[in-house]
Amino acid sequence: MSALFDRHRPMLVSAQTALSDRGFWTPFPEIPSGKIYGETAKADAEAAFAALQGKPFDLPGHPETTRLGAEVSPWGPALGITYPAASAEALIAASAAAAGAWAASSVETRTGICLEILTRLNAQSFLLGHATMHTTGQAFAMAFQAGGPHAQDRGLEAVALAHAEMTRFAPRADWIKPQGKAAALEIEKHWTIVPRGISLAIGCNTFPTWNSYSGIFASLVTGNPVIVKPHPAAILPLALTVKIAREVLVEAGLPADVILLAVDQPGAEITKDLASDAAVALIDYTGSAQFGDWLRAHAGQAHLFTEETGVNTVTLAGTRDFKGMCANLAFSLTLYSGQMCTAPQNIYIPAQGIETDEGHKSFDEVAAGLKEAIGALLTDPAQGAAVAGTIANPATLARAAAARDLGTVLRESTALPFGRSATPLLLVVDAASSTAHEDEVFGPVAFLIRVADADEGIARAADLARRKGAITAAIYDTKEERISRAIARFAQAGVNLSINLTGNIFVNQSAAFSDFHVTGANPAGSASLTDTAFVAPRFTRVMWRRPISDRGQSPGGC
Amino acid sequence: MSALFDRHRPMLVSAQTALSDRGFWTPFPEIPSGKIYGETAKADAEAAFAALQGKPFDLPGHPETTRLGAEVSPWGPALGITYPAASAEALIAASAAAAGAWAASSVETRTGICLEILTRLNAQSFLLGHATMHTTGQAFAMAFQAGGPHAQDRGLEAVALAHAEMTRFAPRADWIKPQGKAAALEIEKHWTIVPRGISLAIGCNTFPTWNSYSGIFASLVTGNPVIVKPHPAAILPLALTVKIAREVLVEAGLPADVILLAVDQPGAEITKDLASDAAVALIDYTGSAQFGDWLRAHAGQAHLFTEETGVNTVTLAGTRDFKGMCANLAFSLTLYSGQMCTAPQNIYIPAQGIETDEGHKSFDEVAAGLKEAIGALLTDPAQGAAVAGTIANPATLARAAAARDLGTVLRESTALPFGRSATPLLLVVDAASSTAHEDEVFGPVAFLIRVADADEGIARAADLARRKGAITAAIYDTKEERISRAIARFAQAGVNLSINLTGNIFVNQSAAFSDFHVTGANPAGSASLTDTAFVAPRFTRVMWRRPISDRGQSPGGC
Repeated sequence: MSALFDRHRPMLVSAQTALSDRGFWTPFPEIPSGKIYGETAKADAEAAFAALQGKPFDLPGHPETTRLGAEVSPWGPALGITYPAASAEALIAASAAAAGAWAASSVETRTGICLEILTRLNAQSFLLGHATMHTTGQAFAMAFQAGGPHAQDRGLEAVALAHAEMTRFAPRADWIKPQGKAAALEIEKHWTIVPRGISLAIGCNTFPTWNSYSGIFASLVTGNPVIVKPHPAAILPLALTVKIAREVLVEAGLPADVILLAVDQPGAEITKDLASDAAVALIDYTGSAQFGDWLRAHAGQAHLFTEETGVNTVTLAGTRDFKGMCANLAFSLTLYSGQMCTAPQNIYIPAQGIETDEGHKSFDEVAAGLKEAIGALLTDPAQGAAVAGTIANPATLARAAAARDLGTVLRESTALPFGRSATPLLLVVDAASSTAHEDEVFGPVAFLIRVADADEGIARAADLARRKGAITAAIYDTKEERISRAIARFAQAGVNLSINLTGNIFVNQSAAFSDFHVTGANPAGSASLTDTAFVAPRFTRVMWRRPISDRGQSPGGC
Repeated sequence: MSALFDRHRPMLVSAQTALSDRGFWTPFPEIPSGKIYGETAKADAEAAFAALQGKPFDLPGHPETTRLGAEVSPWGPALGITYPAASAEALIAASAAAAGAWAASSVETRTGICLEILTRLNAQSFLLGHATMHTTGQAFAMAFQAGGPHAQDRGLEAVALAHAEMTRFAPRADWIKPQGKAAALEIEKHWTIVPRGISLAIGCNTFPTWNSYSGIFASLVTGNPVIVKPHPAAILPLALTVKIAREVLVEAGLPADVILLAVDQPGAEITKDLASDAAVALIDYTGSAQFGDWLRAHAGQAHLFTEETGVNTVTLAGTRDFKGMCANLAFSLTLYSGQMCTAPQNIYIPAQGIETDEGHKSFDEVAAGLKEAIGALLTDPAQGAAVAGTIANPATLARAAAARDLGTVLRESTALPFGRSATPLLLVVDAASSTAHEDEVFGPVAFLIRVADADEGIARAADLARRKGAITAAIYDTKEERISRAIARFAQAGVNLSINLTGNIFVNQSAAFSDFHVTGANPAGSASLTDTAFVAPRFTRVMWRRPISDRGQSPGGC
């Protein structure tokens, strides 16, 4: 039963080393190239994606009382795919029925299966790219990376750390306590990894796989059956994931229902029924703080891992590369139209302006530099669409439109000639008189906030992270002493800080095996991908112990 | 600042190795001998304990608006010691004021300080023994061990695992991502350990140090200031602990208020005010499930680690050593009069009796064997008192008296001629007609429960653990096949199982570095001493990252 484990052991060992070292590493190439994924991979995936559309999605043996699914690509077409659907009660029952066999399988068996699932998901990255593109609205290149290899990295990271944690302590020991001149006390002890119970993964619209794989794989490998609850608008990437996982499980002689898909409809979601069920012991959730509060109030029986609402900030204090700074920030603001949980929203700029390699720049000149850099990214509509993608959810478009009233419009949000799109809206506000920017305005909206000086910007940005949550913070500065102060302030606020990013490294980026995504130290989330606190609570250790002499009495036993 | 760390590093390394291996290990000898602790240690401690009584307890610089304390030894005398006391608000403010300096100290500094505190506590084990004896009512030998070295073991275990966890991942890394023919992306990343916030340790009456040190030291070493809230009847052992810790902190140039003592009075406890304060981020709690429920409902802002109510069981299915079994169980039932959280309460015995090395024994013969073995332990009153100790809390005595009505009395609870004492009450009930034994009756009360056969006993014991919680389970059996089934059943119920214990190994015993105390997998508690889930959530990691090229621009910086 550990053939899969043996096959994938080198990848596991490398992943565990990478986790320790925190340098760059991945076994899953991020370049959508036929040279890597096979010369026919691209065409095969296009054919496969076309074949899925307008049909019932095949999930053999999955609980099904009806068919649901009404996904429409933000790029245009309705997908026309329906998925097997069942009540929360039926899904819980099926999950519970599969739990025993999964819990009873060995750590090596489960680890091998999870690594095989990830490997097969990797081979399907082109198809996952199309599925991600046409549910999230990301451009294909991003959808391929975020929906495919980068998500697989996060899954592998969780498997590697959970495996290390499950094998951290000896699984058996002889405890021999000297008793002076008397015979020593001698006991043998054995520990079993016991999973927590049913695990629920609540996916989001924008990164259905990237934000879900950590929790799904951390729970699976530690022996918990998983119910995957996709956002009704982004089912396909997770349906493909569940399908592949079920195939691997069945091939290994285990129940397919170790992983289930919980499909529902907008307005008739079954998430609350699932989350509050007494059998659900673990919940991974990505979404609004509002529903996070509901879970805290009503799903107290479960250990809750969250990524929630936050307001990411940039503080501009000075730069040795004004053009590079503007270009870098323009990309971060435009990429996927601000729909990344890591995208900046608030840019604090001293009222007196900043010193740069191009000399002093006033507040208005800095603002103009950012606006122009965004414009330059979007000059060519096709290239602009490749960066901005489309808007996943119509509500985001409405929110961006309503946001015009929250400040002085510096740059209007406009549509690109592809799909449901919106370029960044830039608003200017004054920190002394506005609080509009202190709440998350999810989507293509950024505030340029006038502050007295850089230190006020740092203080306000850090304070906001502490109060309202933040996943990223950035600063541009040339004064080392102030940078050091900023490092301390943002650390106290529990938010990761990027300093003077230019070129092709962006504040939005979070690389598995190196970056811990979300700190868990401010309201933007309780879970950090992937630290030990993310995997350790998913299982317990239970012991049996017995005098060694007693073992001797029954040579055939135990 | 890491001189203490360097001094104690060998102990830390040995502790981390022991944690991995799970064999017997301790640096803190459990034998109260002058040869180990110094020829004058015993006399010095007696003098020191005498000098403490009837006086205000000296805690230099501690917040103090009044003096409180009314401890009375269960062995007789009132201690007459008063402690500095202040409002919850004042304690929180003092703790918050000390937090910054403690968080800013390095992992090595904090680890060195914690190890120094433990070493000094160890040197004071005789005094801690007296303090424990005269607050918990334990006999001296047990009070010395449980209040001294065994508690210190648990503290060291927490420090060792938390240190391993804080240093598990590289504290800095160069992340270098190849870009084909273009220049690689190069970022340096740095991670800071950021503590959670104020930590509250809520102690219990029976094991004030043993049950509190894990949480206190896990929180301290990870950078959180700790408020120690002792049970009003068992303040002194924790007051001595806090005093020694404050001395070490001050010597290291850190604020004494990193650790505070929260003394209150019965009926005017400040525990709820402390626990529900927004600044309290971590709570370690030992006590009733009733107050555990209150904490879950009202202290949702904090991460909660608990040990709560449970019902421990023994299932008798057969034995190759009837006398040894009865003697072993008699000791477990009598030791500290059933006031250990690990003491058995329910003993399931087949109605048809069991097979033994002395031939078949009927239910009544088994019951009589247990009764006689308890009697034998107590024949000599002084020796009996050395095992049974006294009753910590008068309410326990009242509970044992009221319990007479819950079944047929097989053995009356009687007083020993020392202090407030009570020997085990043995009650016989029938599993088919009674549920009285299904709730915890804390203290010297045990139920002998008639079941149809051993398998019913196993099923009922495991089911009760799952429903009501249990910290220990035991079985005596000679059939290996049934033992294997029991192992699986109790593992599913999330309770540690001891098999066929005779001689000087008892189900009550839980050894640091080897036994995980409480599994966290049933209602008897959410925390396991000490697994990774106990230490990892006490801190987070926060990063700053910066292009390596940018570092080059400012040679003197960062």
